[in-house]
Amino acid sequence: MQFHLNGFRVGDPSTQPAAPDLAKRTPDQVDVLIVGCGPAGLTLAAQLAQFPDIHTMIVDQKSGPLEVGQADGVACRSIEMFEAFGFSEKVLKESYWVNETTFWGPDPQDPGRITRTGRIQDVADDLSEMPHVILNQARIHDFYLEVMRASPNRLEPRYERAFVDLTVDHAADYPVTVTLDHNGSAEVVRAKYVVGCDGARSGVRSAIGAQLIGEAANKAWGVMDVLVDTGFPDIRFKSVVRSAEQGNILIIPREGGYMVRLYVEMETLAQGERARDRNITIEELIAAAQRILHPYHFDVKEVAWWSVYEIGQRLCPAFDNATETHPATVFIAGDACHTHSPKAGQGMNVSMGDAFNLGWKLAMVLRGQAPAPLLATYSAERQGVAQELIDFDRHWAKEFSERGDGHAGRDPQAFQDYFKEHGRYTAGVAVRYAPSILQSGDGANPLATGQPVGMRFHSAPVIRLWDGRPMQLGHCLKADGRWRVILFNDAADPTAPISRLWQTCDWLAQDPSSPLLRHTPAGADPDAVIDLRAVFQQPHRSIAAEATHPLLTPRKGRHGLADTEKMFCPDPGFDIFDRRGLDRQSGCAILLRPDQYVAAVTPLDAPEAIAAFFKGVFAP
Amino acid sequence: MQFHLNGFRVGDPSTQPAAPDLAKRTPDQVDVLIVGCGPAGLTLAAQLAQFPDIHTMIVDQKSGPLEVGQADGVACRSIEMFEAFGFSEKVLKESYWVNETTFWGPDPQDPGRITRTGRIQDVADDLSEMPHVILNQARIHDFYLEVMRASPNRLEPRYERAFVDLTVDHAADYPVTVTLDHNGSAEVVRAKYVVGCDGARSGVRSAIGAQLIGEAANKAWGVMDVLVDTGFPDIRFKSVVRSAEQGNILIIPREGGYMVRLYVEMETLAQGERARDRNITIEELIAAAQRILHPYHFDVKEVAWWSVYEIGQRLCPAFDNATETHPATVFIAGDACHTHSPKAGQGMNVSMGDAFNLGWKLAMVLRGQAPAPLLATYSAERQGVAQELIDFDRHWAKEFSERGDGHAGRDPQAFQDYFKEHGRYTAGVAVRYAPSILQSGDGANPLATGQPVGMRFHSAPVIRLWDGRPMQLGHCLKADGRWRVILFNDAADPTAPISRLWQTCDWLAQDPSSPLLRHTPAGADPDAVIDLRAVFQQPHRSIAAEATHPLLTPRKGRHGLADTEKMFCPDPGFDIFDRRGLDRQSGCAILLRPDQYVAAVTPLDAPEAIAAFFKGVFAP
Repeated sequence: MQFHLNGFRVGDPSTQPAAPDLAKRTPDQVDVLIVGCGPAGLTLAAQLAQFPDIHTMIVDQKSGPLEVGQADGVACRSIEMFEAFGFSEKVLKESYWVNETTFWGPDPQDPGRITRTGRIQDVADDLSEMPHVILNQARIHDFYLEVMRASPNRLEPRYERAFVDLTVDHAADYPVTVTLDHNGSAEVVRAKYVVGCDGARSGVRSAIGAQLIGEAANKAWGVMDVLVDTGFPDIRFKSVVRSAEQGNILIIPREGGYMVRLYVEMETLAQGERARDRNITIEELIAAAQRILHPYHFDVKEVAWWSVYEIGQRLCPAFDNATETHPATVFIAGDACHTHSPKAGQGMNVSMGDAFNLGWKLAMVLRGQAPAPLLATYSAERQGVAQELIDFDRHWAKEFSERGDGHAGRDPQAFQDYFKEHGRYTAGVAVRYAPSILQSGDGANPLATGQPVGMRFHSAPVIRLWDGRPMQLGHCLKADGRWRVILFNDAADPTAPISRLWQTCDWLAQDPSSPLLRHTPAGADPDAVIDLRAVFQQPHRSIAAEATHPLLTPRKGRHGLADTEKMFCPDPGFDIFDRRGLDRQSGCAILLRPDQYVAAVTPLDAPEAIAAFFKGVFAP
Repeated sequence: MQFHLNGFRVGDPSTQPAAPDLAKRTPDQVDVLIVGCGPAGLTLAAQLAQFPDIHTMIVDQKSGPLEVGQADGVACRSIEMFEAFGFSEKVLKESYWVNETTFWGPDPQDPGRITRTGRIQDVADDLSEMPHVILNQARIHDFYLEVMRASPNRLEPRYERAFVDLTVDHAADYPVTVTLDHNGSAEVVRAKYVVGCDGARSGVRSAIGAQLIGEAANKAWGVMDVLVDTGFPDIRFKSVVRSAEQGNILIIPREGGYMVRLYVEMETLAQGERARDRNITIEELIAAAQRILHPYHFDVKEVAWWSVYEIGQRLCPAFDNATETHPATVFIAGDACHTHSPKAGQGMNVSMGDAFNLGWKLAMVLRGQAPAPLLATYSAERQGVAQELIDFDRHWAKEFSERGDGHAGRDPQAFQDYFKEHGRYTAGVAVRYAPSILQSGDGANPLATGQPVGMRFHSAPVIRLWDGRPMQLGHCLKADGRWRVILFNDAADPTAPISRLWQTCDWLAQDPSSPLLRHTPAGADPDAVIDLRAVFQQPHRSIAAEATHPLLTPRKGRHGLADTEKMFCPDPGFDIFDRRGLDRQSGCAILLRPDQYVAAVTPLDAPEAIAAFFKGVFAP
């Protein structure tokens, strides 16, 4: 954490100075109106709240924050994102960590009993610096609300506001007019942009005439969070249990050490039938669990929450209201544009990923940093991700529902292999965007084979040069809307003015075409828009920090203080060059989007290529 | 974190259920009155606040929480303690980490200039699982206040109450009567115990007739927290700078990345003279720093805080008001009973250590778990620690003030060696108590050579058996007032009923002499008083958790739920048996006090020895 740059301040440093015009703002006219306080809406609100010059409003029809969550699976990638928002440590502290997954099937000797068929590590080594965890969605909401409260905008949701309708007038300064119902009274809000994060029954989606399209669901599932006395030995492991004749269960241990969640396979539904029409009771759910877990006893002592639902995989063809003649002014995110089963543990994660993708793009356009067409990449990128999710979910649900009865092609090993194979996917780190104005190239570049273009930057441990601190390089990539360039040096001495690194720094510092000069507003800190960092190959004690290029220790704030957190060296126990396939001979530059995705990889000594890329993104 | 044991609860799990009688309490009669909201007072308050049946009051003459801290050094041991209180992650997030220390002295070629003479790792590998960090004392206070607020007692300090005087009537139920001055009005509080954490000019100390005894200070020092533009290359390392003729400086980088603290050696004082009498100004302090740091420029942009003080090492002979006829009712802790220079970074840490030592003892006596003589161990143990601190500080201050002028016996290497040699001490992990009713034996026992009796339990990574979670074993040792027994198994299979471990568990579970049965109140959870845990030698996947002794998976709470967090296996990358000198052949039992100190080491198959030890501590 960096603070005190513009003078010492007492108190909690995560509370940022308030935006100067807070008191003047009125609730009838905003830059962005977010409808819905779920994971997507809160991620977006927390992102936009970081910008003092953007007026965001978030509304929800509920009367206050969620208390009992539906979702609970938090993928590694989401915790990487929470780190960017500054609250990963809270999630890591409270959550259950999914360390291993076990598999159970019918005992071949006595198929009426289940037996353990396998046990695997849940997340492969070095897939992410973060674990896979389980935590009540309501707590994730709480942490986002804290981030919003501490932001320059002191953003709080406006509860008890139900979305009624919206109209769009493309000619107006605030093109979207939204009507909300506040306990029976109409409230009208005019907004530059509206984002519907209002769930599977989204009113915003209906208002822009979009539709969820997909297969009819035909399988009822029950989910319950229980405190239980059981003889099932793997009750504190994530476990997939497939019985011979009684159906299947997914067991997810919950935070706190005592509670456990069970997803129980129930009946097959008729065409168009809804699970709730079956009037399935909690007693039936428990009885099914008891049958599946035979011969282990399973005595439920308390039910914290339960629900019955059907699996459905549905998707909107587009996530905005763009037309050939008009760019988008209304977007939808999360369950509003894609629905699927909860068992792959993806729902909350993909929804938050939608919002993280959209937030900085809205900020760039609203702040005049980029032209409006940038916003088209949101639907293009995230619709593809949702399509993949739905394909995966359909396949996963099918694999899961196959009985473990020893049928050919349904053997336990095949199922475990499928699970393992998709580990990168369920961890949230397999997302790969396609080339666009935001992305030059696609997949592994020979200069950086372990940091494929289009995928999230894969963090690694490093040592910070100025203070010798061991840390994760990826933890510099905060959710502050900034682009980043990381120069991975070649083998040369970084303090030598004849080095390629030094020449590149010189160009970036002085050339009129430098993106640092061209895109940074007058008077702003040199890293306010593009944050330049460098990683050297030498051990950190062998480099004189004070002799490196001055651009790598920029002067900032009203006192012109040195920012000493830009340069890094390899951790001796984990060489980032070797482990992330960074070319030692040539070095390279990695360009990162504000949401941590790799936008481009360029040669170390081609600052013009960096400039050309940014010229394609930023407004002139 | 464990929660939801007695049913699912919404919201922040660190907020504990409120004590049932909160509304009935009156502020004129309390179990413990703590005077002073410094590090000692708040540590004690946070500890006592954990017990719903103890009524604690904490007062301070200030009008609110501290905003600008004096102390800032946080030793590894203190962060281990913060982990026990549940807020180590907050400290780790905000603080500066002291990774390396550099040494500077006169350049032999040109003694008017300083040059770097050495650079060492600040904390030796595996000295603690926690780093050495720097953080504004005010923030540590904030974190304690959060713990107090979330405790069953919802404890908040009563500000604007200055201590006036106290009287003791040993015959009364509430023997100590304290008069406070609340903005000119007298308030009278009767207490069973009073603890003076009211600093170097302690009124409580005076009221019990105790005195600080020690040497006159004769050296003035200045301290300043500044935002600075400097060419000194090690401004982000802790650095000891000794110039040839201009004096010495200790540089301590501060949290946030920009601020730095400097301790600057100033003038020698006459006998009895106070530093403040010299009217030293901040300009003089800065000028001195500039002379010492020559040839590097040092332009101060902002002074966040500064002070001038003299070094004095003074100590009270006893830390309580006990007499031959009456046990103690009044205690003093922290600066109230020992003062010393701030440069060894020990003050706040030793003060918190005092309070952590006293808190659980007061709780045991107040709750009727132990007889009052237990309290005599507080002064006995902590006076010895303070004496050592003062000896160290005197020596350290002397070493520090020696000029680096190449004099024989004053060479830079000798100073660095001294610094390294005392690393265990400054990290706070060298404290070793003497045998007493609380401690059987002294120093390394052959069964556990790396866990010496009388010293703090040295944590190590392990894998939790029931859920495969990698974690620090020491992080189970929460500041909840419980004693702990950790059974380190021999090489036998822990699921075999003929094993020594199983036999010991049987005895502990059933024998009428078992301390678990004897000292646990009827109706309480089996681990409410003594928390039994076990560590096995086998890899965690090779042991069937469900086949281990039932005592190691106790049933708890109103639902009788299984506590699955008691058993551990070695981390394959760091074998706790090898690294902590635990006898693989014989195993052992380690008995831990509620403040994490090793009270005894017994053979694995001698539960009677465990029983005998606890019989000596607990009330019949």
